[in-house]
Amino acid sequence: MSKQCCTPMTSSPLSSSDATDAAAAFKALGDPVRLRLMSVIASAGGEICVCELTPLFDVSGPTVSHHLRVLRSAGLIECERRGTWVYYWPLPDRLRQISTLLSVPESAMAE
Amino acid sequence: MSKQCCTPMTSSPLSSSDATDAAAAFKALGDPVRLRLMSVIASAGGEICVCELTPLFDVSGPTVSHHLRVLRSAGLIECERRGTWVYYWPLPDRLRQISTLLSVPESAMAE
Repeated sequence: MSKQCCTPMTSSPLSSSDATDAAAAFKALGDPVRLRLMSVIASAGGEICVCELTPLFDVSGPTVSHHLRVLRSAGLIECERRGTWVYYWPLPDRLRQISTLLSVPESAMAE
Repeated sequence: MSKQCCTPMTSSPLSSSDATDAAAAFKALGDPVRLRLMSVIASAGGEICVCELTPLFDVSGPTVSHHLRVLRSAGLIECERRGTWVYYWPLPDRLRQISTLLSVPESAMAE
């Protein structure tokens, strides 16, 4: 995504390429289970073992793994295998980027 | 969405119901054309006529209308018909809500 990515969309429309990049992140967050998974990883305060994630969700292990792959492909999390388990952590720059895109300056719009 | 909606997900995990609500907004933004459409409406500085939106996109009028319905169902825009045309405007509170959800306090995480 270009530097323009970090301009709020209330300031200027997105280019096609920036929209394609950001839409991939939003699509990844557009599923309730995946969004909740992202929030658990984001709030873990560091890395979290997949073995701690799976028991929190009412879906199978393979489904959790699938959701984690989607979040990783969208650049929202990263992971590392160590021994038996895979550990996940959030990528804050990507979160900040899409948060800024959606941000509304206090003065910009009255509802 | 409950009040907790407006806590960044880096602070605490989302509840199931808040995740369902926010995921609907992210899903609506998870398509490149729809996201660009949202950015044009958000940056218009007021309301914008559908007649100004359609020529900006390489898709048919009915497709633009479909995308606008999805954004409206997700609570991101509102519209009003006046005479021949429908006029659209952004709902800044909803944008702020999901922006805050993704926001990362400077001190929260080092990449």
